[in-house]
Amino acid sequence: MSNLLNRIYSPKELRQLPIDELPQLAKELREFIINIVATKEGHLGASLGVVELTLALHYVFNTPEDLLIWDVGHQAYGHKIITGRKDIFHTNRQLNGISGFPKRDESEYDAFGVGHSSTSISAALGMAIASQLKGDDKHHIAVIGDASMASGMAFEGLNHAGVTDANLLVILNDNAIGIDPSVGALKQYLTNVKKGTQKQDNIFEALNFNYSGPIDGHDINKVISELERLKTVKGPKFLHVITTKGKGLKQAEDNQVKYHAPGKFDAKTGEIYAKSAYRQPPKFQDVFGHTLVELAKLNSNIIGITPAMPTGSSLKYMMEEIPDRAFDVGIAEQHAVTLAAGMATQGLIPFCNIYSTFLQRAYDQVIHDVALQNLPVIFCLDRAGLVGEDGATHHGVFDLTYLRCIPNLIIFSPRNEIELRDIMYTAQLGLKQPIAIRYPRGKGVTIDWKQPFSKIKIGSGVQLKSGTKLAILSIGFIANNVTEAIENSSNSNDVAHYDMRFVKPLDESLLHSIFKSYTTIFTIEDGTIKGGFGSEILEFASKHNYKNNIKVLGIPDKFIEQGRVGELQSIAKIDVKSLINLIENI
Amino acid sequence: MSNLLNRIYSPKELRQLPIDELPQLAKELREFIINIVATKEGHLGASLGVVELTLALHYVFNTPEDLLIWDVGHQAYGHKIITGRKDIFHTNRQLNGISGFPKRDESEYDAFGVGHSSTSISAALGMAIASQLKGDDKHHIAVIGDASMASGMAFEGLNHAGVTDANLLVILNDNAIGIDPSVGALKQYLTNVKKGTQKQDNIFEALNFNYSGPIDGHDINKVISELERLKTVKGPKFLHVITTKGKGLKQAEDNQVKYHAPGKFDAKTGEIYAKSAYRQPPKFQDVFGHTLVELAKLNSNIIGITPAMPTGSSLKYMMEEIPDRAFDVGIAEQHAVTLAAGMATQGLIPFCNIYSTFLQRAYDQVIHDVALQNLPVIFCLDRAGLVGEDGATHHGVFDLTYLRCIPNLIIFSPRNEIELRDIMYTAQLGLKQPIAIRYPRGKGVTIDWKQPFSKIKIGSGVQLKSGTKLAILSIGFIANNVTEAIENSSNSNDVAHYDMRFVKPLDESLLHSIFKSYTTIFTIEDGTIKGGFGSEILEFASKHNYKNNIKVLGIPDKFIEQGRVGELQSIAKIDVKSLINLIENI
Repeated sequence: MSNLLNRIYSPKELRQLPIDELPQLAKELREFIINIVATKEGHLGASLGVVELTLALHYVFNTPEDLLIWDVGHQAYGHKIITGRKDIFHTNRQLNGISGFPKRDESEYDAFGVGHSSTSISAALGMAIASQLKGDDKHHIAVIGDASMASGMAFEGLNHAGVTDANLLVILNDNAIGIDPSVGALKQYLTNVKKGTQKQDNIFEALNFNYSGPIDGHDINKVISELERLKTVKGPKFLHVITTKGKGLKQAEDNQVKYHAPGKFDAKTGEIYAKSAYRQPPKFQDVFGHTLVELAKLNSNIIGITPAMPTGSSLKYMMEEIPDRAFDVGIAEQHAVTLAAGMATQGLIPFCNIYSTFLQRAYDQVIHDVALQNLPVIFCLDRAGLVGEDGATHHGVFDLTYLRCIPNLIIFSPRNEIELRDIMYTAQLGLKQPIAIRYPRGKGVTIDWKQPFSKIKIGSGVQLKSGTKLAILSIGFIANNVTEAIENSSNSNDVAHYDMRFVKPLDESLLHSIFKSYTTIFTIEDGTIKGGFGSEILEFASKHNYKNNIKVLGIPDKFIEQGRVGELQSIAKIDVKSLINLIENI
Repeated sequence: MSNLLNRIYSPKELRQLPIDELPQLAKELREFIINIVATKEGHLGASLGVVELTLALHYVFNTPEDLLIWDVGHQAYGHKIITGRKDIFHTNRQLNGISGFPKRDESEYDAFGVGHSSTSISAALGMAIASQLKGDDKHHIAVIGDASMASGMAFEGLNHAGVTDANLLVILNDNAIGIDPSVGALKQYLTNVKKGTQKQDNIFEALNFNYSGPIDGHDINKVISELERLKTVKGPKFLHVITTKGKGLKQAEDNQVKYHAPGKFDAKTGEIYAKSAYRQPPKFQDVFGHTLVELAKLNSNIIGITPAMPTGSSLKYMMEEIPDRAFDVGIAEQHAVTLAAGMATQGLIPFCNIYSTFLQRAYDQVIHDVALQNLPVIFCLDRAGLVGEDGATHHGVFDLTYLRCIPNLIIFSPRNEIELRDIMYTAQLGLKQPIAIRYPRGKGVTIDWKQPFSKIKIGSGVQLKSGTKLAILSIGFIANNVTEAIENSSNSNDVAHYDMRFVKPLDESLLHSIFKSYTTIFTIEDGTIKGGFGSEILEFASKHNYKNNIKVLGIPDKFIEQGRVGELQSIAKIDVKSLINLIENI
């Protein structure tokens, strides 16, 4: 059936096809993507939307000599498949398989590694300036979605590029949606452009780009002829392309949020397979989302903020039920944090929900706008720790370290759903300082999680199990690995287990009693060993002159790739099996 | 002489003046600022430029009920003087004096603490949304310069505000300069607007703001009448005001870069007092600046990048001598880092110079775009450690911690000028990974600093002094305090001193020999104790089961305010005197 696609091993073969065969190739490429993602899971909608654009770019430009960067990279499956990775595409997002994102190590066609949004213009401009200096006659293309374009970093790239004469082509892939529908004034502006109602003001021309468009991104002939024309235009240029996310699979077009990354589905009908009917523990994000609604109904000062993750964070529940107090601000982590700070000055209680890895984008704002002013913003950091298949760009493993050095900030990590609920409850009771609450991606451990609220004493750890020889101090969800490992160890009586809960402030009185009771202490976290929770415990020991044996377990000093969370934990030796080995060998 | 100003204790008295007396008050306020800054030092040009705007804002709006935010805050001296701080303004930027920036603790008129750029729109929007929810009929005003407006965070704020109906007034204080002249496409656009050559495209209207201007910001009647009009306009609105930085002091108008913060000068003539004629050690920034030119002449792949600090970083020397390879990208740290990453993919060797405190703005880009791809970008972090009079917003004390957890990254800190030169030389010889070089604000210690280059072995520490009882391990410039303290201690023979130089990779073989030779080890750094260099040493000790006594010296877990560096070091007990005490008491 896939007659054309079977012959495409690289863009070389693609370029030998007559142009009138490209629509057929597009059809085959789309089917290939659907068939694999249906069984292997992954990001679907974005790649379906740029099938024609992908083929056109590689048809017109001389990749990999010409340098092509896909912003974020969710949309790059077609690109991967036609650049030599068709036969291993079924290993997408798996351990030792290919990455779900473009990655320089993986292919010379992946000019720049991506994952976080809005980096493509800056990187492509850097390459374009390099080509100018070296006298290389290359093209440099950044393909960026409208949601990513609204992030400040993209604006910074445009602002610089506009005063250069670099050979840079920025392609705006405008489908009016990121993971959730795009928001903000730029989106509204782009909508007006599409409708023809934005008569006068062209933002991109005002920034010195040679603007063309909007054109239909599914009309491959049109896209090719426009790209051919733009090849001859000097300096920074901008092509506005309109596409439909999920194009070619009706359910994915109709349900763009759900089909962003739909899990397993029927490739023929598009129907998403039902989850197990057994009652299971909820996702942490849903505990956050539902609990926030519950609390917000009781406390009218509570605000919810998400930078472009209403679905991923489950803030959508509050956005549906209490829309005037729940804000999706777009891919704008910096703004999200300082907006929350501004609200907190006026007595509001903002819950600012940001994935751990994306809070790296707002690090300065956490320090400078929130902690320095000691404003009681409540940060809820979803996707903390190892996130699994999204891989190295998305693991939330640095947060304990980069937050721990910030004065005034409380840091808490719940080991289960009840603890998450209770700390959210506690935080909105009138904290006088900011708090960061970090919890993992995916399911928790508690089926009956919706229990009455109970206040948590700030800076209090808890003993989960007593023991005689060894104390294990854990922080957050990884406590469950420890519990399971102890239960399955032959010498479980030897081992005590404490959930410290707070990285800051530490439960010093509990720690003193632990250090006086056990010769050997293990600390464990699903964050970097360097500077993290274990390091905090070492600092405590040093300060108080304890000479116990302390072993720090956590993520080693290297980037961890994609795979199932359990597989990745075993690389870091914090999986249950590794812990049993450790315990058996004390 | 200051008849009017003497009667102004708060905006209440200001509002009672007839409008025709305001030009006289402006004149007096300007003189007051000049007279104090001439003798006490501080930021001059920015505040002189907004004297009329400052008076107009407090005249028209009902501060502090109406909320006024000054972006960055260099320009807020006039604001401070007329809001109750006239009599203590001479303590500006001193220990226990008033801060050089607006600060919530200091006055109810300082609606939001500032220091870093481009936060004002987000914070003001947060306040405006709070007022909406509470039904408060307040005005919310962000005053932001054109350089700060070009930073991505400001765009994120505009993008959100444009789709709200919040009562937000953004005032663009357009003087075409930040600390150095503004750059980028937005600056060019604004220049066209001023010249009347930007006929069609209005970026701010495209983002849904009600735009007015440009108006002359020194015509106080005009500014007042426009502000009065805007008070009645609903929703987000934008006033474009043209001002002259340094207005009213001829030399400051003519030499805007020099008079941004001129040091001591003659208040009458404006003449800056000559520095001591004695030969002194150079500033670290100049060692960087001159050395980069020297290296760039030898290595054509070298690039220089600064986000808006050509003068402050001394990249200006390369911009003058090799302009096609030295880039000021504006206040755009995120873009600067990823631009450097893009260049590095093409074999260029970017020296990306960013103040330590501002690298917090690009933390994610260091992790995600540089370190994860292991691209050999050379970060030069100026103003690391305690910076003195700029205070809490500007101390570069978090960097060792937030960088230390990033895999692949080398971290080096030179104790003197020669070491800075040598590591810069070493880094451009063909490193296969990124490196961060952190050095302090101000002068070094070596008059004859321009020595032939010598290669530094990556990961090698050095012994500076031998001793018998105690080993002090220092990192960076603080080594000089240690040396001086040892020299002035009665028991100096007891004390060995090692400059570890690299926080990563550690000189493990040197450390093993130290841990085997000394029972007691002190570590010292001018960064946070939590998670920093000392913590790295504790991790090493824990990993290898050493039980030595280790004492970690550095910045405690609180924000340090403004003052002279020596004063602030004594708060952290890392000044020479505190170190002598420690050494004498071992």
